[in-house]
Amino acid sequence: MELDIDLRSDTVTKPSQEMRDAAATAEVGDDVYRDDPSVNELERRAAEAVGKEAALYVPTGTMGNQIAVRTHTERGNELLLDSEAHIYRWELAGAAQIAEVQTRIVDSGERCVPTPEQVREGLVDEDLHRPGTGLLALENTHNYRGGTAVPKEHVDAAAEVAHANDVPVHLDGARVFNAAVALDTPTPELVENVDTVNFCLSKGLGAPVGSILAGPEEFIERARRVRKLLGGGMRQAGMIAAPGIVALDNVDRLAEDHANADRLAAGLDDVDGLSAGEPDTNIVVVDSEDAGIEADDLVPKCKEAGVGAVAFGEYTTRFTTHLGIDADDVDEAVERIAVIV
Amino acid sequence: MELDIDLRSDTVTKPSQEMRDAAATAEVGDDVYRDDPSVNELERRAAEAVGKEAALYVPTGTMGNQIAVRTHTERGNELLLDSEAHIYRWELAGAAQIAEVQTRIVDSGERCVPTPEQVREGLVDEDLHRPGTGLLALENTHNYRGGTAVPKEHVDAAAEVAHANDVPVHLDGARVFNAAVALDTPTPELVENVDTVNFCLSKGLGAPVGSILAGPEEFIERARRVRKLLGGGMRQAGMIAAPGIVALDNVDRLAEDHANADRLAAGLDDVDGLSAGEPDTNIVVVDSEDAGIEADDLVPKCKEAGVGAVAFGEYTTRFTTHLGIDADDVDEAVERIAVIV
Amino acid sequence: MELDIDLRSDTVTKPSQEMRDAAATAEVGDDVYRDDPSVNELERRAAEAVGKEAALYVPTGTMGNQIAVRTHTERGNELLLDSEAHIYRWELAGAAQIAEVQTRIVDSGERCVPTPEQVREGLVDEDLHRPGTGLLALENTHNYRGGTAVPKEHVDAAAEVAHANDVPVHLDGARVFNAAVALDTPTPELVENVDTVNFCLSKGLGAPVGSILAGPEEFIERARRVRKLLGGGMRQAGMIAAPGIVALDNVDRLAEDHANADRLAAGLDDVDGLSAGEPDTNIVVVDSEDAGIEADDLVPKCKEAGVGAVAFGEYTTRFTTHLGIDADDVDEAVERIAVIV
Amino acid sequence: MELDIDLRSDTVTKPSQEMRDAAATAEVGDDVYRDDPSVNELERRAAEAVGKEAALYVPTGTMGNQIAVRTHTERGNELLLDSEAHIYRWELAGAAQIAEVQTRIVDSGERCVPTPEQVREGLVDEDLHRPGTGLLALENTHNYRGGTAVPKEHVDAAAEVAHANDVPVHLDGARVFNAAVALDTPTPELVENVDTVNFCLSKGLGAPVGSILAGPEEFIERARRVRKLLGGGMRQAGMIAAPGIVALDNVDRLAEDHANADRLAAGLDDVDGLSAGEPDTNIVVVDSEDAGIEADDLVPKCKEAGVGAVAFGEYTTRFTTHLGIDADDVDEAVERIAVIV
Repeated sequence: MELDIDLRSDTVTKPSQEMRDAAATAEVGDDVYRDDPSVNELERRAAEAVGKEAALYVPTGTMGNQIAVRTHTERGNELLLDSEAHIYRWELAGAAQIAEVQTRIVDSGERCVPTPEQVREGLVDEDLHRPGTGLLALENTHNYRGGTAVPKEHVDAAAEVAHANDVPVHLDGARVFNAAVALDTPTPELVENVDTVNFCLSKGLGAPVGSILAGPEEFIERARRVRKLLGGGMRQAGMIAAPGIVALDNVDRLAEDHANADRLAAGLDDVDGLSAGEPDTNIVVVDSEDAGIEADDLVPKCKEAGVGAVAFGEYTTRFTTHLGIDADDVDEAVERIAVIV
Repeated sequence: MELDIDLRSDTVTKPSQEMRDAAATAEVGDDVYRDDPSVNELERRAAEAVGKEAALYVPTGTMGNQIAVRTHTERGNELLLDSEAHIYRWELAGAAQIAEVQTRIVDSGERCVPTPEQVREGLVDEDLHRPGTGLLALENTHNYRGGTAVPKEHVDAAAEVAHANDVPVHLDGARVFNAAVALDTPTPELVENVDTVNFCLSKGLGAPVGSILAGPEEFIERARRVRKLLGGGMRQAGMIAAPGIVALDNVDRLAEDHANADRLAAGLDDVDGLSAGEPDTNIVVVDSEDAGIEADDLVPKCKEAGVGAVAFGEYTTRFTTHLGIDADDVDEAVERIAVIV
Repeated sequence: MELDIDLRSDTVTKPSQEMRDAAATAEVGDDVYRDDPSVNELERRAAEAVGKEAALYVPTGTMGNQIAVRTHTERGNELLLDSEAHIYRWELAGAAQIAEVQTRIVDSGERCVPTPEQVREGLVDEDLHRPGTGLLALENTHNYRGGTAVPKEHVDAAAEVAHANDVPVHLDGARVFNAAVALDTPTPELVENVDTVNFCLSKGLGAPVGSILAGPEEFIERARRVRKLLGGGMRQAGMIAAPGIVALDNVDRLAEDHANADRLAAGLDDVDGLSAGEPDTNIVVVDSEDAGIEADDLVPKCKEAGVGAVAFGEYTTRFTTHLGIDADDVDEAVERIAVIV
Repeated sequence: MELDIDLRSDTVTKPSQEMRDAAATAEVGDDVYRDDPSVNELERRAAEAVGKEAALYVPTGTMGNQIAVRTHTERGNELLLDSEAHIYRWELAGAAQIAEVQTRIVDSGERCVPTPEQVREGLVDEDLHRPGTGLLALENTHNYRGGTAVPKEHVDAAAEVAHANDVPVHLDGARVFNAAVALDTPTPELVENVDTVNFCLSKGLGAPVGSILAGPEEFIERARRVRKLLGGGMRQAGMIAAPGIVALDNVDRLAEDHANADRLAAGLDDVDGLSAGEPDTNIVVVDSEDAGIEADDLVPKCKEAGVGAVAFGEYTTRFTTHLGIDADDVDEAVERIAVIV
C-alpha cells in the first residue's frame, strides 16, 4: 500500500505550486561567482529571519551543521553537546571525520539543552594533555527528545556559561521556527544569544531542498570556503533558492502542524496500549510498550495501513505532522492505527 | 557594464524553459529515503549515458570527485594524477582533508593524461615506509590544459597499467560529453575502461545544479554514505534532478559550442598580439604575451567591454563557449576584444 | 623545597642500577630493520607476560593506545569507552585527530568498566546515518577512578557483549600488572578476553621509557606500520628496551606499592578533614572537602612540604606510591600533610 | 653470512662506550613534567648546535618532521617540497594523514632544493578554490639524491622567496651536520634562514635513539603539544638523551665518514660495470647498469658477501659510511663487491 498519510518526517513535504512557479521563473546566475540574484535574496532574507548578519545557502542541514562545527573549531578541540543531538547521533561522526573534534556528551534529559552547571562541568581547558572545548552545540526544537521547544531562557543560560569561557555556541535549529511559534517568541529573539544557527528550508517550511547557516559576516565568509571544500558550492542554485524564499513565508502556518500534532497525540493516547503525551511542536513520540508492540513491529504495520512513521527506540515511534497533513489525515491515521494495535 | 557575452565558464549557463518546466512539474519525494522518482529516473538514465551500472546524483562536481577519491582509497594512500588536474588544483586540498591521501603528480603535458610509462613510475607499492597508490585519477576533457579531448586510447593505456597493478581509475569527466562529441566516440565506449566517472549536468549540458558519479553498483552504495557524510543527501531533489534529465538531451548540441569555440579562436588569433590555437572543444585559451598584456589586465578590460573571461596563467586567458552563446556573440566578442588589445 | 617524597605519579620512577647496567651493556641493532636483539627479546617476553601472540615496543602509553584505536577501527566509527578513560580525557582528542573516530562515553561509575547492559546500549549499528561502533576500550587499573583493579568477570562481561556484536576490545592496561597483583589473577588470564592490551614499562615497573602493545600477530604487523607513521619507529632502541626487560621482573614487587598505598590512605584518613578510603592498588585519592581545602590549594602546599601530588578534581588529590617510596616515606608524608591541613 | 660491513645506513651505528656510560649514569626525571635534567641539557645544547632559540627531543626524525609540518600549517594548506624529499617519499603520507596538507612537489634535480623560480611558481595563494601554501620544506643533506650537501646560498635563495610570501621554511636536516662539515659552513650559519630544523642524533652522530626539532621558543612550545598527541612525550628520557649529548661531540668526526665515502666511491668506480661519482658526504650511490645488474640483485649478493646496502632505483644502490666503518672496512667491501659483479 502506498503511504497516503506519510508521517515519517516533515522532510517528506512536497513543494507547493507557488514554490514550483518560483523555481520556474527564478532569476539565476552562477552562485560560485555570487552572481545568483535568487540565492543572494534568499541569504539576505534568511539572515533577517533569524536576526543574524549574514547567511549561507547549503544543500542540507547536515552540511550546515558540519560547516559550523568545522568553522568554529580547531582540530583536536572538544565539541560539547547533548547525548541525543542530531550532530552526534545521525551525522556519521562528521565532527570527528571532517572537523577532527572530540565529542563530549551531556545527558540533558527533558530540558534538551545542558544546564549551566552541566556546561560548566563539560568545558575543558586546553593544556598539554587536554583538548580545549571549541564549541557548544545546542538543538531547538530537539528532534530526538520529541520535538521539544526549548525556551529562550534555557538556551541563553547555557550560552552564557559558554561565552563566559570564550566558547562559541552553535544552534542546530533545523526546526527552530517550530520552536519560535510554539514558544511564541520571535525567532531572532530566541536565537539572539547563539553565535550561529542552522535551519532547514526543506522540513516544515516545505521547500524542496536546502538549509541556511546564519551568523556573523566574517564567520559566513570562512564558512563559504568550507562549503566549497565539502562540495556544496552549487551553480544556478537560484532555481531551488527561489522556492526557499517562498518557504520563509510558511513560518506562521507551522502552528497548524502543531495543532495537528496535538490532535494526533490525543487520538493515539486514547488508543489502548499507546501513550503519546502532549507534543510541543509537530513531533509526536508514541510509546507502545503497554501494548507489547516494539517500534520495529509497529512501523511496518503502520506502513501496511498506509501510515508512515519512524522507529525511535525499542518501544517508541515518531510521527511528524507537516504541511501535507490536515486534520482529516490525522483522524484517519488514528483510526487506522487503532485497528492495528 | 553588464557581462552580456559571458565566456567565463560553461558553468554560467542558465536553464532553458524546458528545464524550468521540468522543475515546475517534477514528481518528487524524499531522496534520502530513495523516494524521489525524478532522482531515481535521472540516476538510471545518467548511468546509461556513460554505460555504468549505477549512478548517484550529487550537488556539485567537486563533491562527486571527492566522494570518488574517498570511496576508492584508504587514508594514507597515494592519489596519482596530472599536475594540472582539477582535483589537485581547485578543490581546496580535499584529497588530503577529506580522504587523507597524498597527491603524487605527473606532468602529462599536452597528452593530458599520464603515459603508461608515467603511470608505471608513479605507482608506489605499499611497504613499511611508503603509502601504496590507491587511485589513478584522469580528467577528460582536461580543463586547465585547454579543454583538450583525450582520445580513448590514451585513457585506456593509462588505465591498463593501473589495473594491472590493482589500482582503480576514476575519471573526472566534468565535461566528458564534450570529449565524446569532439572525438566522435560514444561516451560509454570512451569511459569503458575507467571504474568510475563523474560528470556535470550544470556545465555545457545546461542544468542549473548537479553532477553525477557513476560506477559499479557496490561502489555507488558506499558512495551514497560518503555523500551523506559530506552533507549531500538532499530531500525533494527531484525538482533539480528533473532539469538534469532534460540536460542529458543536450549532449549532441555540444558540437555547436565547439564550432563556436573554433570560430572564436580563429577570430582572436587574427587579432594582433593574440594567439589562440585550435580548440578541441568549447574552451579557448588565448595567449596575449606578444601583445604585452597580462591576463590579470586583459580580464578586467574584457569585463569593461561586457565580455566575461577568466585568467589562467600569467599571459593566458580562458574563454568558454556554451549554450548561451551563438555565432553572433562570438563575432561581437572578437570585435570588442580587438579594440582593447 | 625539593620534592623528596614524590607521589605525583609512578611515572616519576627512576631506573634501578640493574636497569642502568642493562642499558650500558645492551646488545643493539636497528629496530626499523628488526635487527635489535634487545627489542626483539623484550617484545617476545612482553607478549608472554600478557599471554598474547605478539607485541610491539612503543615510546609511550599514549602512542600504544592511539595505535590500537587507529589499527582496530575505520575512520568514522565510534569508540565506546568510560567517561573517565585516559584515552578520552588525557590524550588530546587523539581518537578524533589520528583515527577520526567519534567517542561515545558511558559513565561506568565505581565499576570502572561498562556493564554488559551499558555496552549493549552503547553499541551502534552502521547505517546510512550512523557510524558503526569500531572498538570498545576498557581501562584496568582505572587511573582516574582511583587506581581501581577491575575484576576479570567485569572485563569479560563487557568484552563478551562487544564480541557478540563483532566489535573488538582494547584494554588500556597502563597499570594492568597492578590490577593482576591486587586481584591475585595471573595477567594472561585477566586479559585473555580482550583482543589487545597496552601496558607501560615506565610506570610501576620502573623502566625509564616505553610501553608495550600486545595482541594477535596479524594485528601487531599492521600496528607496526601505524607506529612508523606516528614517528615511533626508533633505531637502537635496545638501549631502552633492555631496562624494559629488567622491568618485567618488577611485577611481584608491585604488592609493596599497594601496601604502601594502604598505609598512606590509612594515615591520611586519620588526618582531620581528609578522607581517603581503601585503595585497590597504588593510587590514593584523598578528599579534602571537609577540611575546606581545594585540591588546587592542597597540591602547592604539599609541594612546599616536599610532597608531590596531583589535583584530580575540585576537592580530590591523587597520591601514587611506587618503587621510589618506602614505608618511612609514607609515614613522613602523612606527618607533613597533617601539619598543613 | 653476517653483515660484518654494514653500509645499509648510518642509522645502524651502535652507541659508543662513552654513550653507554652516559646512559648508565644519566641524571633523569619525568620529562613530561620537564623534570629530566639530561633532556633539558640536551635540548639546550642541541638548540645551540644549530643556532636556534629552543629545541625539542623526539624519538625519531619522522616524528620531528611530522610535528614540524603539522605545527607550521593549517589543514588544507599546501606543503611545497622536492619530489625526492624524505617527508614526501618515506613517511607514509604523514603530511596528508596527520597534518591534512596537500603535497606540491618540484623536481629540484641535482640542486636538491628548488630554485627561487621554482618556489615562486610553486607557491599558491589561498582563495575560494585553492589551498594556500603553508610551508616550504627543504632537505640537507639530501638523502635520496645522494647525500648531497646543499650550499647555504641555495638554501637561502629558496627560503627568501618563501619568506617574502609569508611562508615559513622547515629544513629536514636529518644529516645537516654532514652538510655543514662537507661545506665547511658552521651549522648555525647554514640553517640561519630556515625557521625550523630537524636533525638526527641517531644517524652519523651515533646516538642510539632520538632526533631534535629546533626553532623559535614559541614554535617549540606548540610543537611540544603535538609531540604529546603523537605519543612522543617520554618519561625518564634522560637515559637516551644523555648519549645524545655525547653524540653532539661527534660532529667533527663526520669528516672521516666522508673520506671513507670518497674512498669507497673511488674503489667501486674502478670496478668494471660500476660507476659511483664523487660523493659529497657519507652516501655513495652506485650505478650498476653497465654491469647489467639490477639493484634488487646486487643488494642480496652484497648481503651474501657480508656487505649491507640498500636498493635505491632500478640500477642504483646506496652505500653509507658511518662511525662503525673504517678505511679497512671500505677496502674490504670494495674487494668483496668486485668479486660479485
